[in-house]
Amino acid sequence: MTTRVGIYGYGNLGRGIELAVNAAEDMELVAVFTRRDPASVKIATSGVTVANVKDVESFKDKIDVMILCGGSATDLPEQTPALAKLFNVVDSFDTHAKIPTHFANVDASAKSSKHVALISAGWDPGMFSLNRLYANAVLPNGKDYTFWGKGVSQGHSDAIRRIEGVADARQYTCPVQSALDAVRSGSNPELTTREKHTRLCYVVLKDGADAAKVEQEIKNMPNYFSDYDTTVNFISQEELDKNHKGLPHGGFVIRSGSTGNGKNKHVIEYSLKLDSNPEFTASVIVAYARAVARLFNEGASGCKTVFDIAPAYLSTLSGEQLRATML
Amino acid sequence: MTTRVGIYGYGNLGRGIELAVNAAEDMELVAVFTRRDPASVKIATSGVTVANVKDVESFKDKIDVMILCGGSATDLPEQTPALAKLFNVVDSFDTHAKIPTHFANVDASAKSSKHVALISAGWDPGMFSLNRLYANAVLPNGKDYTFWGKGVSQGHSDAIRRIEGVADARQYTCPVQSALDAVRSGSNPELTTREKHTRLCYVVLKDGADAAKVEQEIKNMPNYFSDYDTTVNFISQEELDKNHKGLPHGGFVIRSGSTGNGKNKHVIEYSLKLDSNPEFTASVIVAYARAVARLFNEGASGCKTVFDIAPAYLSTLSGEQLRATML
Repeated sequence: MTTRVGIYGYGNLGRGIELAVNAAEDMELVAVFTRRDPASVKIATSGVTVANVKDVESFKDKIDVMILCGGSATDLPEQTPALAKLFNVVDSFDTHAKIPTHFANVDASAKSSKHVALISAGWDPGMFSLNRLYANAVLPNGKDYTFWGKGVSQGHSDAIRRIEGVADARQYTCPVQSALDAVRSGSNPELTTREKHTRLCYVVLKDGADAAKVEQEIKNMPNYFSDYDTTVNFISQEELDKNHKGLPHGGFVIRSGSTGNGKNKHVIEYSLKLDSNPEFTASVIVAYARAVARLFNEGASGCKTVFDIAPAYLSTLSGEQLRATML
Repeated sequence: MTTRVGIYGYGNLGRGIELAVNAAEDMELVAVFTRRDPASVKIATSGVTVANVKDVESFKDKIDVMILCGGSATDLPEQTPALAKLFNVVDSFDTHAKIPTHFANVDASAKSSKHVALISAGWDPGMFSLNRLYANAVLPNGKDYTFWGKGVSQGHSDAIRRIEGVADARQYTCPVQSALDAVRSGSNPELTTREKHTRLCYVVLKDGADAAKVEQEIKNMPNYFSDYDTTVNFISQEELDKNHKGLPHGGFVIRSGSTGNGKNKHVIEYSLKLDSNPEFTASVIVAYARAVARLFNEGASGCKTVFDIAPAYLSTLSGEQLRATML
């Protein structure tokens, strides 16, 4: 069975989805939807339709799973419930605090149209969430730690770019090695925000800007930087373009706990080291799109998360093949 | 709902199950079954029945899930299909090559009695298998590596103890750090058996035994040692009892691959560092026993593996709680 996929939104994530769908032998990219003039959008795959979002309804019977690539702030809260009326959908909604509301909205829509929707796929939420759940289930007496990085935070980079005198910027979130080591030792340390991560900034100034003033403004920015030890490096646009244009990311989910009434300690660790955050996120989403198509064919409907999907649904291999090769 | 659990076999694993069931607020230990005289078996929990295995059928309506703690070589191939006729069951069958046959036998039995059976729970097979599957599904273009240790291999320790002149022994399997580093770099190295693990042995000699001869016999033992760099340390029984009586283990599952037609590399790593192999294995099994009870209550039957179980089934938390706290 080939799963016919649509991509709704063609930015970094949409391009990643295109690569991942083309790499999957059981999937076919049918169309890319854009808010822009379709004629102005060049996609990497030849022979695939580029259409305007307002024409999406006419693809109702041509697409098995629509993958939504908009942002969590304003796009997905509207788009996922709306498109779940027409299609099976997958999104990567990542505003953790608003997941319960988003789930309820998408669930109502998907149930009424008898489609399957899967929200919050990716690596956090997504693979990291799975590892938090598994580790908590198998080690009920313990403590969770999540570290992010080293990786580019686009939100923090944007925040720096909004400062007067800044021409361009890239911000890396970095886990603190000594904190990671303490957690891995099984000592279950209490760690403050400042003790877990540092922030490393590469900033290009506009002509005549006051470097000291920009540095202070970054370091004192509430929520984004003031709770962290922040390093600001001023570099040229050429250097930024040469060394800091990638979107690497990653991180660590660690649970440390004990069994035998506290006698025996155990440490469970999951980590990702990613050259391209959007391409890896897209790869996770595409695996879940496979699961969504299968669940729909089995008659399921409503909103799901990664917690609700049996792992076997993600693989192109049969149960028999999986048991023989991976168990 | 409280899940009523039985333990079938009371060795290291059975004692670990007892600890894990007692630590689970939604479970109750009903009985421990032994091939020995029940009066001779002292268990840690007061008020729990110890019964002989030949009386197991009379517990048919008193136990929701029977956890089988026998060995994979001869016990489980007989016991799991037999007990699946009477109970929902979980085992930790770990002879990887024989899993397909075991699955088929257990599946036929569980389907005919309309019970749920879950085989091969633990950490390898088990948590490591899950991580192999997830990593392959989300990173189809890549290469898998599994490293074990540092940990005690009971099979290798037993093999040394069978050598003439050996009074006692403990064998540790150790991953080679440089091989781990090479894999983590994303270079996808080809590694031989010898390059991945070393074997470290602590041996107590009988009076008058020939140390050099014992050392050669260990190092040249086919399958167990001859393909590895093996270090043999001769120590006293006191030192072995003091420093080597624990059963620590662990290991690493790493998948390294790429997206974007090979342009961007990604490394996914899962690792365990366990003070007690049997207690951690038991903790995983007990989480899967929870899932088995739920699946049975939903009307499912037949043989399952960790690949078939949606993660949410393992947790005591509701879907709503999981989404709010772990996604």
